[in-house]
Order: sequence, then structure tokens, then C-alpha cells
Amino acid sequence: MLKIENIRPADIESRSFEIITQELGPRQLDPRQAPIIKRCIHTSADFDYADNLYFSDGAVERMLAALRAGAHIVTDTQMARAGINKTVLARFGGQVHCFMSDSDVAAEARQRQVTRAVVSMERAAALSGPLLFAIGNAPTALLHLVELAGQGCVGPAGIIGVPVGFVNVIESKERLIESGLCCIAARGRKGGSNIAACICNALLYMADGRQ
Amino acid sequence: MLKIENIRPADIESRSFEIITQELGPRQLDPRQAPIIKRCIHTSADFDYADNLYFSDGAVERMLAALRAGAHIVTDTQMARAGINKTVLARFGGQVHCFMSDSDVAAEARQRQVTRAVVSMERAAALSGPLLFAIGNAPTALLHLVELAGQGCVGPAGIIGVPVGFVNVIESKERLIESGLCCIAARGRKGGSNIAACICNALLYMADGRQ
Repeated sequence: MLKIENIRPADIESRSFEIITQELGPRQLDPRQAPIIKRCIHTSADFDYADNLYFSDGAVERMLAALRAGAHIVTDTQMARAGINKTVLARFGGQVHCFMSDSDVAAEARQRQVTRAVVSMERAAALSGPLLFAIGNAPTALLHLVELAGQGCVGPAGIIGVPVGFVNVIESKERLIESGLCCIAARGRKGGSNIAACICNALLYMADGRQ
Repeated sequence: MLKIENIRPADIESRSFEIITQELGPRQLDPRQAPIIKRCIHTSADFDYADNLYFSDGAVERMLAALRAGAHIVTDTQMARAGINKTVLARFGGQVHCFMSDSDVAAEARQRQVTRAVVSMERAAALSGPLLFAIGNAPTALLHLVELAGQGCVGPAGIIGVPVGFVNVIESKERLIESGLCCIAARGRKGGSNIAACICNALLYMADGRQ
């Protein structure tokens, strides 16, 4: 029978990060990006995130500044919303918004034959103050967001673009990267609501001075 | 610039499953297990789930019967709770419970020097009616649950054991498998709240006759 390591609850996360650092080996990560990359690996046990994350120039610094200035976070799933550390976010004055489950969003999406994600991005664009978008599920949300930003309908402080899947997922993330918007993206098919939430949390912990 | 596939919102999921089926190739999946395996790949874009999922004898049939009989689902994270299709679950009479954020759970965990997950499993064990546990995060929750079941303190209708990570994660899932309890587990380090939720949803859609 495999032996269970006897470890204090408070030490499990730091021990996990030690193992990740060790297994990453001699590879040099940008010190601003390292906490984000390692938290994605921590969340998924998938070392692909050591290679697939793209950061636009100064993305981490700009997103940290936005969070410290009280930016709100917009997600495209209730799962991502549930996973974000709202206590730390509130300390800076921010809240998390997700419009996906609003009944009028579903009704409008049906009527317009678009996804609920498209409609929920339009609702989010109408929010005031600095906004950080965390898109972990719907490529349609990310594509529409990049389009809205290109039209000047929204000026996001940053976009975490990590939809997962097989249809228009890679394309949506490449559009985001080509747009020149401040972003962190997971190239390829991988990503998810868990990854969107954990990138937000990595940024929040950095903004909070923990890492 | 990469071309965006023009596809109706309602068709995105079925097209994704077609691609997954195609890329899995000639491999023969058990027809009862296939919808679960494919939904894990759909949720993560990670084909490792074609190989790492373990099903105890008759697990799918037993969990479907439990859901149809109105089983409640217990999760170890708010993220997993958020990701489960509560509309379909409610149709059979079930609800999702997660005790992790209860303030008295945190207080008791601190006092006993155990994880909140351990305390929240004890709270769940006191629920009445058939229970399906979906553990996507905390190996301590899974280990304690297997222990409680061994002591006869809880008789779960099924356990979805898919914690993710680096400390006691593999061990917790092997203990589950060795226990002989009705379970679905992701062997190795991978898993997560997203995987826990999507296995519940795959079962719910099967119970609902969609697949």
C-alpha cells in the first residue's frame, strides 16, 4: 500500500510548489511569470503550461496595477467565478462578475442565435471602472471581446484568454495575441475555467505581496 | 490569420465530441464508460483521460441508478459545485452540497489541525439519503472519506475520486481503488474540480437519456 506523507495542511501548497520547481529543472522562467506558470501546473498537474502560456509585453505588471487599483474581474463561467479568491480581490476593492446564468442573457442569445457568452461579454463591456476579463471556456466570448475592444466598445485592463476545447479555441487565442491587447493566453487547445481562476489567483497573491 | 469555423452555438459541443472520437482512433472504449471519458477530454483537451480513468465493476450503472433515485452530490470545492448541472440533477430530486466555505468548518479544522476538507466530509456523512461524492481537489477529503466508509460511518452510493496535484494525490486515489468501494478515479496526478464536475454531468446526461 502506498505510504501517505504526513504533512500539516498549511504546508501542502508550498510542498507542491517545491515539487513543481524541482521537476521543471534548470529551465529559466521569467520571475514575474513564474508564479503564474507554476500555479497553472499546480491546478492541472499538467506541465504543458510551462510551454503554452503567452504573456504580452508587461502583461503581469499591468494586470497587477489594475488589480491594485480595484479592477473588477469578469468571467465567462460560474466555475471560474467560484474559483477566484474573492476575499483578496475585495481587499483591493474588486468584485467578480459573471452574466452567463442571467435569464435575460439566455433569452437574448436564443433570439439572436449567438452564444450566451457573446451576450454576457456585451453586458460586461457596460460595466464602469478597470476590468480584467478571465475567459476559460467560450471561444465565442473571447472572439467577441477582442472584436468589441477593436471597435473601442470596451477597454479591458487585461484579458486572460484560456478557453479550452476543439472548435475555434486555438483560433480565438491567436486572435487575442495578434490584437496587441494586454493579455495572458494559453496557446493550443488547453485551458479551462480552473486555469482562468488560478491565473487570477496567482495575480491576486502577487498583488497581495505573498509571492 | 487563422480562419474561424462558422458553426451554430447548439452544434459546438457535438462537433467537439466528433473531433475527440476521431482523434481517439480505432481504440475500443466500453460504451458505458465512453461518454465519461470523452467528456473529461472535452473539459481538459487532455487525451491522458483516455488512459487514466479507473471504473470499479458496474460503477457507471450503480451511479446512474443512484442519481435516478434522487441521490445528492457532495463536492469538496465550490468550483465543482458551480460546474455541476443542477437543473438536470434537480429533475431526479438531487441537490449539490459543499461544506468547505462554512465558517464553522474552518474553525473546527483550525482547532483540530486538519484540513477543512476532512471536516466537510464528516458533515456530509451525516446527510441522509443516497450520496454521490465528487472529490476533485483535496486528497485529504478522499482519504478521510474512504476511512469513514471503512468504519461504516458513511455508505456512499459512489465516489468520483479525482483530486489533482503533487502531495498524497496518487496515494489517495490508489486507496480508493483498493477499498473496493463503487468509484470512478483518475489514476496519477491529474484531475481537478472541472473533471469532478464533468464526470457528474456525463452521468447526469446519461441518466437523462441524452447519451
